[in-house]
Amino acid sequence: MNKALNLHKKLKGKIEIRPKIRVSKRNLHLVYTPGVAEVAKEISRNPAKSFEYTSRGNNVAIITDGSRTLGVGNTIPEAALPVIEGKALFSKALAGIDAYPIALRTKSKKEIIRTIEILSPNFAAFNIEDIKSPKSLEIMEELRKKDLILFHDDEEGVAIVVLATLFNALRVVGKKLKEVRICLAGAGTAGYGIFKILNYAGLKNLLVYDAKGIIFRGRKGDNKYLKEIAKLTNRENLKGSQKEAIEGSDVFIGVTGCGNLLNSSDIKLMQKNPIIFALSNPVPEIFPKKIKKVTQNYILATGRSDFPNQINNLIVFPGILRGLLDSGRKMNLALEFKIAKSITSLIKKPRPNYIIPSPFDKRLVKTIVNCLK
Amino acid sequence: MNKALNLHKKLKGKIEIRPKIRVSKRNLHLVYTPGVAEVAKEISRNPAKSFEYTSRGNNVAIITDGSRTLGVGNTIPEAALPVIEGKALFSKALAGIDAYPIALRTKSKKEIIRTIEILSPNFAAFNIEDIKSPKSLEIMEELRKKDLILFHDDEEGVAIVVLATLFNALRVVGKKLKEVRICLAGAGTAGYGIFKILNYAGLKNLLVYDAKGIIFRGRKGDNKYLKEIAKLTNRENLKGSQKEAIEGSDVFIGVTGCGNLLNSSDIKLMQKNPIIFALSNPVPEIFPKKIKKVTQNYILATGRSDFPNQINNLIVFPGILRGLLDSGRKMNLALEFKIAKSITSLIKKPRPNYIIPSPFDKRLVKTIVNCLK
Repeated sequence: MNKALNLHKKLKGKIEIRPKIRVSKRNLHLVYTPGVAEVAKEISRNPAKSFEYTSRGNNVAIITDGSRTLGVGNTIPEAALPVIEGKALFSKALAGIDAYPIALRTKSKKEIIRTIEILSPNFAAFNIEDIKSPKSLEIMEELRKKDLILFHDDEEGVAIVVLATLFNALRVVGKKLKEVRICLAGAGTAGYGIFKILNYAGLKNLLVYDAKGIIFRGRKGDNKYLKEIAKLTNRENLKGSQKEAIEGSDVFIGVTGCGNLLNSSDIKLMQKNPIIFALSNPVPEIFPKKIKKVTQNYILATGRSDFPNQINNLIVFPGILRGLLDSGRKMNLALEFKIAKSITSLIKKPRPNYIIPSPFDKRLVKTIVNCLK
Repeated sequence: MNKALNLHKKLKGKIEIRPKIRVSKRNLHLVYTPGVAEVAKEISRNPAKSFEYTSRGNNVAIITDGSRTLGVGNTIPEAALPVIEGKALFSKALAGIDAYPIALRTKSKKEIIRTIEILSPNFAAFNIEDIKSPKSLEIMEELRKKDLILFHDDEEGVAIVVLATLFNALRVVGKKLKEVRICLAGAGTAGYGIFKILNYAGLKNLLVYDAKGIIFRGRKGDNKYLKEIAKLTNRENLKGSQKEAIEGSDVFIGVTGCGNLLNSSDIKLMQKNPIIFALSNPVPEIFPKKIKKVTQNYILATGRSDFPNQINNLIVFPGILRGLLDSGRKMNLALEFKIAKSITSLIKKPRPNYIIPSPFDKRLVKTIVNCLK
């Protein structure tokens, strides 16, 4: 991994600010004083004009507090900078968006929400990233009440890619979403987002478990999001550990953050032709080797680029941000579902090793933007 | 001024975010997951590494609350966007700085200070702009106690350009700073900054007046900054209005925000060879026509680009920000004085219509950066 460090050291930042006009004595009076005062006056009379006369309409803030940073977890905001700079890099490269990486030196829910409000005049949308749950969900709940265009990548982005990939995996094994049993491991931001979209998509048989075991109605100490999961999953109100959760499931989806959580014996508990999404990154919940000890007929997706079927938010966030900016719409579950379906359809003939497009698939942004029109 | 509106509409923002590397499947694992996780880890162990591995070291935030916006005054933050985008444009074009325009949706002193702290992980320095006084001065006082690199353009930038220009004007008329009497009109952010540097430079005879008249020791209702002015100026503790303030002065410096404040009769009250800095923008405190009715031997500087001797912060802020980023130093009066002197020296033979370099003078940034080394 020294190569990544070296590249970052050489670049000193993956993005930069660039002028859109060459400045000179000739245009100084237009781009600066006194001409710019006329533009300020015009906007002061009608704030919506800021979308017309400044870069605001194409600006997205990528906001994090560093509390759930890739590979580090809960850390200082500075450590999140290379990650959110990467998101800004791809936002521009893939979808022409001016994304500003902004890591906040506060972990307070109240201050994060207030800071986003205070920053709102500069942006057309906010992309909320890598904040610990349930704080992330609480923040989104508050922000959604305000006049802001929002995208919660870890909740909504992951959910969309997972559902899009799942539909193709099910096509490969010839099963239907309404008939399968899914075991979802992890009930953080991503887990909650996946639960919401699976429920919306009509899944009947879902069991969710976390470090305390299967989530059931009446479990002690659960927050409101876990209670919501309990209410809408686990029809028989089963209690138990990982083993009971996995037993008999057609699909395993892991968003636990725990590498090597599963063993070969766990795969044995699953139905034939198991579908396994081991999404913890960089170490997945299970490696192919352990699955192959049990069966050759499986479908595996991970978050890694060195295995087939990489489930990566990069597949969706540039297109979604582009679509939100262009349409001014707000995200909801119906849109998540529509986008997931449209991504699924990009793959005409899914195979075990080809159930999701590459993030560089040029059709992606256009397809997603169309869903948001 | 329709031309400025049209240009802004066409550009939709004078700056943009640009990738510094071309992304592809080949480097995805380095600029994004999993490689970027190593960079995050490295920074989490040592936050100073964020200057090495991200764009932070070249990033400046241009912060305003829109309370003293060019041509509008106290307004909504959106209206300040074209102005601070212009500053970002020139920061990059003239000094290679990545400046982020950030207009805050709050007028609260406490919230502005707190927001700057919260945003600090992303930036190497903060440029504070266009905030109403005395709030601007109070904010700076608090911020200077913190571990931040700061530049207060309206206070420090204006002061430097005024002093640099004044030295050359005095050379032209053959007077010395320590011997002249200066009348300073306006005691807001710029007025306070000019008072501080003139006092530091050794001026003995300074009278400052504002809307309530000459500032004197014992005046009722003055804030601490006005009291500081009273303490260190107006040796004879004169009271009076504009007329008494101007009478007998060699130099008039206006930073009042009031266009056409002076008449020909006021110029008559001044000494021979009057030096007049009428810096309110876009309408100066007096136009050349009115001065010419009284004398042909005068020196006039304004904030306008269509008259000679334009006093414009643009002359200094790109170089100062560059110098602060490169050196990691903090601004102080000694540095202000040093920078002003070095700008004065760029003009070998000052003439009444040539006492300050053009903002596009290529020597400026280098000269200022050298002062900050």
